[in-house]
Amino acid sequence: MKVGIIFGSKSDINKMKGAADALKEFDVQYKAYILSAHRVPEKLSETIVEMEKEGVEVIIAGAGLAAHLPGVIASQTILPVIGVPIKAALDGMDSLLSIVQMPKSIPVATVAIDNSYNAGMLAVEILSIKYSDLKEKLKTYRKNMKKKFIEENCEGIEL
Amino acid sequence: MKVGIIFGSKSDINKMKGAADALKEFDVQYKAYILSAHRVPEKLSETIVEMEKEGVEVIIAGAGLAAHLPGVIASQTILPVIGVPIKAALDGMDSLLSIVQMPKSIPVATVAIDNSYNAGMLAVEILSIKYSDLKEKLKTYRKNMKKKFIEENCEGIEL
Amino acid sequence: MKVGIIFGSKSDINKMKGAADALKEFDVQYKAYILSAHRVPEKLSETIVEMEKEGVEVIIAGAGLAAHLPGVIASQTILPVIGVPIKAALDGMDSLLSIVQMPKSIPVATVAIDNSYNAGMLAVEILSIKYSDLKEKLKTYRKNMKKKFIEENCEGIEL
Amino acid sequence: MKVGIIFGSKSDINKMKGAADALKEFDVQYKAYILSAHRVPEKLSETIVEMEKEGVEVIIAGAGLAAHLPGVIASQTILPVIGVPIKAALDGMDSLLSIVQMPKSIPVATVAIDNSYNAGMLAVEILSIKYSDLKEKLKTYRKNMKKKFIEENCEGIEL
Amino acid sequence: MKVGIIFGSKSDINKMKGAADALKEFDVQYKAYILSAHRVPEKLSETIVEMEKEGVEVIIAGAGLAAHLPGVIASQTILPVIGVPIKAALDGMDSLLSIVQMPKSIPVATVAIDNSYNAGMLAVEILSIKYSDLKEKLKTYRKNMKKKFIEENCEGIEL
Amino acid sequence: MKVGIIFGSKSDINKMKGAADALKEFDVQYKAYILSAHRVPEKLSETIVEMEKEGVEVIIAGAGLAAHLPGVIASQTILPVIGVPIKAALDGMDSLLSIVQMPKSIPVATVAIDNSYNAGMLAVEILSIKYSDLKEKLKTYRKNMKKKFIEENCEGIEL
Amino acid sequence: MKVGIIFGSKSDINKMKGAADALKEFDVQYKAYILSAHRVPEKLSETIVEMEKEGVEVIIAGAGLAAHLPGVIASQTILPVIGVPIKAALDGMDSLLSIVQMPKSIPVATVAIDNSYNAGMLAVEILSIKYSDLKEKLKTYRKNMKKKFIEENCEGIEL
Amino acid sequence: MKVGIIFGSKSDINKMKGAADALKEFDVQYKAYILSAHRVPEKLSETIVEMEKEGVEVIIAGAGLAAHLPGVIASQTILPVIGVPIKAALDGMDSLLSIVQMPKSIPVATVAIDNSYNAGMLAVEILSIKYSDLKEKLKTYRKNMKKKFIEENCEGIEL
Repeated sequence: MKVGIIFGSKSDINKMKGAADALKEFDVQYKAYILSAHRVPEKLSETIVEMEKEGVEVIIAGAGLAAHLPGVIASQTILPVIGVPIKAALDGMDSLLSIVQMPKSIPVATVAIDNSYNAGMLAVEILSIKYSDLKEKLKTYRKNMKKKFIEENCEGIEL
Repeated sequence: MKVGIIFGSKSDINKMKGAADALKEFDVQYKAYILSAHRVPEKLSETIVEMEKEGVEVIIAGAGLAAHLPGVIASQTILPVIGVPIKAALDGMDSLLSIVQMPKSIPVATVAIDNSYNAGMLAVEILSIKYSDLKEKLKTYRKNMKKKFIEENCEGIEL
Repeated sequence: MKVGIIFGSKSDINKMKGAADALKEFDVQYKAYILSAHRVPEKLSETIVEMEKEGVEVIIAGAGLAAHLPGVIASQTILPVIGVPIKAALDGMDSLLSIVQMPKSIPVATVAIDNSYNAGMLAVEILSIKYSDLKEKLKTYRKNMKKKFIEENCEGIEL
Repeated sequence: MKVGIIFGSKSDINKMKGAADALKEFDVQYKAYILSAHRVPEKLSETIVEMEKEGVEVIIAGAGLAAHLPGVIASQTILPVIGVPIKAALDGMDSLLSIVQMPKSIPVATVAIDNSYNAGMLAVEILSIKYSDLKEKLKTYRKNMKKKFIEENCEGIEL
Repeated sequence: MKVGIIFGSKSDINKMKGAADALKEFDVQYKAYILSAHRVPEKLSETIVEMEKEGVEVIIAGAGLAAHLPGVIASQTILPVIGVPIKAALDGMDSLLSIVQMPKSIPVATVAIDNSYNAGMLAVEILSIKYSDLKEKLKTYRKNMKKKFIEENCEGIEL
Repeated sequence: MKVGIIFGSKSDINKMKGAADALKEFDVQYKAYILSAHRVPEKLSETIVEMEKEGVEVIIAGAGLAAHLPGVIASQTILPVIGVPIKAALDGMDSLLSIVQMPKSIPVATVAIDNSYNAGMLAVEILSIKYSDLKEKLKTYRKNMKKKFIEENCEGIEL
Repeated sequence: MKVGIIFGSKSDINKMKGAADALKEFDVQYKAYILSAHRVPEKLSETIVEMEKEGVEVIIAGAGLAAHLPGVIASQTILPVIGVPIKAALDGMDSLLSIVQMPKSIPVATVAIDNSYNAGMLAVEILSIKYSDLKEKLKTYRKNMKKKFIEENCEGIEL
Repeated sequence: MKVGIIFGSKSDINKMKGAADALKEFDVQYKAYILSAHRVPEKLSETIVEMEKEGVEVIIAGAGLAAHLPGVIASQTILPVIGVPIKAALDGMDSLLSIVQMPKSIPVATVAIDNSYNAGMLAVEILSIKYSDLKEKLKTYRKNMKKKFIEENCEGIEL
């Protein structure tokens, strides 16, 4: 188990699926939890401890509105925490600011609004500094991404 | 001890003083704590429990940036929590949204940016539904406020 | 009658229903009024006086656009006033700022945009400092909320 | 007395002076009042009635933060009300939205943030549809403004 | 002909209809024109001159995006110009700022985003300082509005 | 005379100087005018015609607040118009939106807030498609910029 | 080949079609490429070099979100680069700011959000300073635009 | 050499120093470079390759305005890239959005505006999943941070 994914509500499953998609693409084991910083703070704390014991090395947390989840997790672990701002109001600006504007000493690595796929990618990049097979896979991924992009788009676009 | 005031840093003392000023005006006992949701989450939790034991009935919490403090407190108590958005970046918009946009079931009673005085006033109004002397004091305060306002401003303003 | 709910238009009934839902959950008596600060200011003033006579202890006010209703009510009573910013334009940012940015001495306890349920919850929390049965109900509510949350979400989420 | 100027605090005198400056330039009689929609709502109501009796034909109202003053006045008179958003927080965006976003039937004629001079100009334009001497003065004002602008700026600017 | 209504595109007819609705309610004669400050600036200038000759006393101008129309008209006439910000992008914030933030000496009386009805109402209020029958109609309108509001909403709202 | 620079007030000379600085660096002849779209619209129109006669090929226009100047110029010429949003309120956001959000058919080439230097650079780039000496100068400028940047910054930065 | 159009994804074809439409209207030859600054940076660099060899004189680049494409192109060529902010999140505000706020020396000529037609128009205006036939066509285009506008809209609008 | 720090201008040294401060606190070797994505794109590309050769495992990049630097770096490496939005205009909102809103597949780990210290902290957290001594140091750092926080703030705050 290398990555823990946490978010606050079943209704966010579709928005957070992208994180799992990216991790699957690189065969990185993960486990997903629905936990709310505001509704079950004690269960959240227990789960963070448990994750650390199970060897989780990166945590991805998605939240909307006054999105405290990623910051609250970061305050309880020294693992890198990746925050996904979920759009629920104000085009997601409230989530983004609640996640990214963390004070000194307790950072959250924030990605784009509703872009959980990139949270997964960032987790892979982070893990790749330790696991050399992931580094190779990332290089291949990039190479293939470029190849595919060029193949699909190269020939004279009609506008 | 009726009101607990919590904020995250000594540098915010000046901004939070207004809450104490309002409470003093109504002879409401309070105690102030510097506690950070991100740096000392366990100490914060302990203090909330302690406050409840000491009979605190309203909590005022001020925070800036990704201002999680009021919401984190609200998730750990059923006391009414009043949030003061402190301006530290983005004109305080990040603090405001991080405090006010709380999800269903866990409200934070939010006042204006950098207006801790109003947090104190709101605490007095809340307490006054229980303590009838505060109700009388509030009525007198309003009456005096109006009288003073009219006295000071009534005579033909020169522009 | 413990809580008065006021909002400016029939078209907001759906958005304000949440406040009543929360109050019903705690068996808190309330009465709802449609009153506009701009269209029937005299009727609004009369109703505030009447509410006070009937023993209302907290007022919940919802408004959109240049949302003056909560602040105008707050200027005419010493009861705690809870403001619900209703989204009608600009994603509700105009309503939020018109409600939360109240000047010194006249606070409005503001909750999240379109989150009238939390206004109801906040009213219950405020009343609970006086009525000990509500305090017990709130504790039970929180306990059940946590239990239900964990039951529904605990077992291995598939992403 | 043709124009009434109302604003909420002595500290705004400098920001509202522009309105008087414009009116003086056209010899339009005005009277200025410091009155707060939130602190002295009854006195405000009395003053509006009084102004109407004294023959005031346009009201200029300046306010900051949750700037309810112009809208509250507009709800109590059928005179045209001109609103000046005063910058006190958030670059004046809160004041602007609280003034301009008035609901159906009760408009406030809003001018630029901190631009009370233009409120005075707009009052003159409005009065000029009734008072033909003002119409002539406005034409002269424009002519002179253009002449002066061209004289001062016409000759080859060095950059 | 007392009021001229100008806007830039047939696609805005629905959004500007409200202005005509308000004017019709008070039997105020108006004439509507589709004219663009950017596409037909000369025709716009001609029309403004023509309007003045025909006795137009107030101009209502609606525009979206970089909404220059109201300000451009204001720069070519001394008649009061009422601006309606039309929402076409960015929730109408671009239109609002392009209309309301006019520089010193050339005001535009701005109303709420997409609220052309209030532009009509404001025109009536402005005309009423000259035409006493409009003053009476406005008083009746307000009285009826209040009466109707109370009748429709007064009896116990179910939430 | 290849470039015309127009802006609305002497107080903007410092902010618009950058445009001249860039043009001087490439020995491109320019002439600067202070002209306001709102105060001297006729003089502005005359000057645009005059500029075209004198062979001006690109116009740079700087404006703040409801910044109509660049768009108004663009509506009266087919020359490319470059707009510089000048910060005067709201951090320059009002100027930026008033300039960039031009409707279909009448574009304004907008550069960054308060960045008149880039307006000059863009004018040079535009002129360089016609004047091959400018193309060479631009290549040299870029080469030197890179060389200087590397020389100044290359050696081990101490943090 | 006078104009190169570049954008980052097939899904933007509809949004970028407007640029081609404008160019076709003036018989300006163009070629469109799908290239991403982030996914295929090397291919992008190669293509820019190739475009310059083929005689491209203006580049139009459209991008959404953290819209780096226009700025990245501008850093690799001295040709004028026109940027089209494509709305993908936050109403397009992220794209707009990522494109327009370029630092000193490397401008991007930015047009309105989702307004690729105006990017095409601006390209034509820029080319017209070199190609006199385009200048004539632009004059005719404007004349026809005005004529058509007046014909379609002139006769008494019913509201 | 474990961390590379890159930013675009000498004037940002003070703002980026925090990253180095955090790294020094953990004895993590770093090297800082001043490189601009827009002015020296080739040198930037060379340096990224060089950094990878020297064994750099995390890159921290700070940029203001249309802040492309972190994203451009991320497109050229598979190392995790941490972005620091530097406030230069619009309160740093342009920088934040230009950095955080990266499209699918190429993430940038964004921290708070002007908070380069947290970029350093995040780099340490990331490295700690590989280097167990850093993990221990992080635990000690947190423990000391908490201890110091409590010592400094614990005794009865006077307000």
